[in-house]
Formats: sequence, C-alpha cells, structure tokens
Amino acid sequence: MAITLYEIVCADDARFSPYAWRSRLALAHKGLEAEFVPCRFTDKAKIAFSGQDKTPILIDDGQVVCDSWSIACYLEEHYPHRPSLFGGSAARQLARFINHRTDTQLNPALFRLLAYDIYLRVDPVDREYFRRTREARLGRPLEQVHAERDRYLPALASALVPLQMALGEQPFLSGRAPAYADYIVMGTIQWTARASELPVVAENAPLYAWRERMLDLHGGYARTRGLPQSQGLEIPAG
Amino acid sequence: MAITLYEIVCADDARFSPYAWRSRLALAHKGLEAEFVPCRFTDKAKIAFSGQDKTPILIDDGQVVCDSWSIACYLEEHYPHRPSLFGGSAARQLARFINHRTDTQLNPALFRLLAYDIYLRVDPVDREYFRRTREARLGRPLEQVHAERDRYLPALASALVPLQMALGEQPFLSGRAPAYADYIVMGTIQWTARASELPVVAENAPLYAWRERMLDLHGGYARTRGLPQSQGLEIPAG
Repeated sequence: MAITLYEIVCADDARFSPYAWRSRLALAHKGLEAEFVPCRFTDKAKIAFSGQDKTPILIDDGQVVCDSWSIACYLEEHYPHRPSLFGGSAARQLARFINHRTDTQLNPALFRLLAYDIYLRVDPVDREYFRRTREARLGRPLEQVHAERDRYLPALASALVPLQMALGEQPFLSGRAPAYADYIVMGTIQWTARASELPVVAENAPLYAWRERMLDLHGGYARTRGLPQSQGLEIPAG
Repeated sequence: MAITLYEIVCADDARFSPYAWRSRLALAHKGLEAEFVPCRFTDKAKIAFSGQDKTPILIDDGQVVCDSWSIACYLEEHYPHRPSLFGGSAARQLARFINHRTDTQLNPALFRLLAYDIYLRVDPVDREYFRRTREARLGRPLEQVHAERDRYLPALASALVPLQMALGEQPFLSGRAPAYADYIVMGTIQWTARASELPVVAENAPLYAWRERMLDLHGGYARTRGLPQSQGLEIPAG
C-alpha cells in the first residue's frame, strides 16, 4: 500500500511548508515513494481523520502519524534496512535538539521576514484565515511587519551563524553524508526560497554551497518537486 | 606520562572556565587522570610554549593540543577503547554544531549577565586586564552592563528554550547517556553557577534536573572539583 503525506498547499499548487519538506526529504532519503495530498490552511475537515489539525500527516499501511519529528522516527523504525535517517541514537537525540532549535529560534526569526510574502502566495480562499491567525501570532498587521523587515535581519543573521560555522567545516550538518538534521534545516531553506525573494543565503557563504548540495540530493528532489504548477517539472501529487 | 590541562584560574584558586570544564568532563568521561595547571588571565608567558594565548591546553605524552573541541577530538582518537565522547560520526558533527551554537549564542547571551560577577572573582592581578578586554568586547563599562542585567534576561531565556525542550524529553542532550554535547552545555552551566548567583536554572525546569544528573556523573566530579580553595573538597591541581 502506498505511503501518503498530507501537506499544506499554497496558490498554484506550490508546496513549501518547512515541516512537510522535512518529511519529503526523509521519504526521499529512505527511497520511499509517496503520494502527496495537498491541503489548504482552512481544509481542516480534510485532515479531521487524524484527530488533530496540523500537517504534515503520514499514512502508511493504515497507520496515521502526525508531526514531522514523529514521522521521521516512524520511518526510521519501520524501514530499518533502508539508509538511516539519524546515524545512531546519540545523533538522533542531537537532531531532536536541532529540531527544537529550528522550530523555536530559526523559523520564528524567519517568519517575521516571510509572513507577508507567504500571505501573497497562499490560496485566495485561505488569505483571511492566514492573515487573522498570523497577525495574532505576530501582534501586528502583516504589512507593518513587512515594512519593518530590515530591523529583523540581524537576528536572522545571528541565528544562522552556528550553521555557517559548522557548514564551513564539513559538507553536511551531519558530517560527510546528509541525515535528518540536514533535512530539518533544508525545510526552512526551501520555505524561505520558495515563499520569498529574501536573500537569506549569500552566494559566498557556506550555507549556499550546502544548499546546492542539498538541492542535488536524491536526483535533484528539492530542486524539482513541489514547485508552483506554472513552473512545475512534475505532476505535483506524484 | 600524566596528562596535563592548563586552565584559567580565578581568585582563591577557583576554576570555572566553560571551555576548561568541557575538557575536564571529557577527561572524566574517558576515565583519564590529569594534572590541572592554573593559569591566570595575564599569565601569557606560562602558555607561550603552545604557540597561542588561550586555554584550555592539553599536554599528553609530549603532544600539545589547544582548543577544547580539538582536545575532545584528540581524546576520542587516542583513547578509542574508553567510552566514546560522541557516539558515532554523525553525533560528533552535530555536537560540533552545538559547540558553535553555544560559543556564539548561549555564552555571549550569558556573558553580559556574568561579566561583572566574574570581574569580582578574578585574581586582583588580572582585574585591570579583564576589565579592559571585556569592556572592549561589551562596548561599555562592566558596571553599566551589570546595571542593565534585567534587559538581557529575555534573550537568555530564549536561548535556553530548545535545551529545556530537549531535556524535557530525555535524560541527557545526547539521549540516555551523557556525551560531549552535554559537556559543552555543562561547561556553560558550571561557569554560570560558580561565577554568579544568577538564577539561570529554575528549580522546576528540565535543565535543573539535568544539571543534577550532570553534577552526579563520574563520582560527583562537577560537584566537587575546581571549587574555590576556601570551599574546596580537593587539592585543586589533582
């Protein structure tokens, strides 16, 4: 039975949720095919079967797994003979720290910079919902946060420093080969690059060379999948 | 031939350099005895043999190793049959990221809060040097930074969030057993607890229970070693 992943979709069928990209790259790392089911922000009824209201959601052989970290752990446990997503139990727990650090520091530092750009790219049906929920989170109108972007750039640069340092010393965050910690951060980079023109990754920075390596992985998976349909090189749900 | 570690010493023979504590705990993890040689901030002549001016410095069998990360890698490579400091190559590289993150985000967030307290604890001979170099780094007088402490607490709490989250889920940052990533963060916690009364670790927080576990490790090593001589339970250079 095929694996299914429910993920957020924006206008023009674009897929750029940072959390869904973690799961997409984890599936590609394991060499697993999946069907990707698009779900708009307000499509809560479509995922009610999962007992909660967030994506990504994985369904494999009747099992429903919510939350990108749980999905990674599920894939590691149920497909142990395929390439490891973690590379051992200590590495898995350190990846968990990186997961928390990305969710609570890097992604919020970026969200202030991206929020308005994402708003412009969400499906028109979702716009009112997106504006209301995100303005509540940010504490002010999206347009105002957008106008203040320059003020937020130093915090972002600072959050990127340890990544730049680590990637200046080794090809991947996980060492010589990519693993789930790399996919966590790549989710964030895909989100940024696809939702915005924001020049987060300067061409001379270690993060830039790493992103190129990440885009090349698994047959160019992150370069070619989930693009807006008008630029798409694939059938998006394949 | 015995292993020797040169480390910063403050007044009353107190040892609380966060970087030396990484090496101390790495040695204890490997079950290696060492002689700890105190070095004041201005004792540059004493460590000139190393070709640079920073501690910790390890000497083992005639080899001189500078920098706490290089010391950890040296110990792992030269004592492979003793307990691993990393638990695999992916975990080692993720620990390297945590090393960079601690050096560039957590420690600077704390240093603003601790600088004046450390100043009061450095050897009187080192005070002028400490004040001059640290005021240059902070951009203003130590007393002014100290008076502004409340302003810096939110950034510190924010830097601690992913640690609290990870340690709420597992006994150590590295999983079920401690490893070098734990020693990196514990160096910071020792520095804080010994240089200051600052209540960084609230008693109900996961970080507090973790610190208790860390203090108990290796026969209570971090609880009993390197204390000021007037409180000391050991001969400090033993």
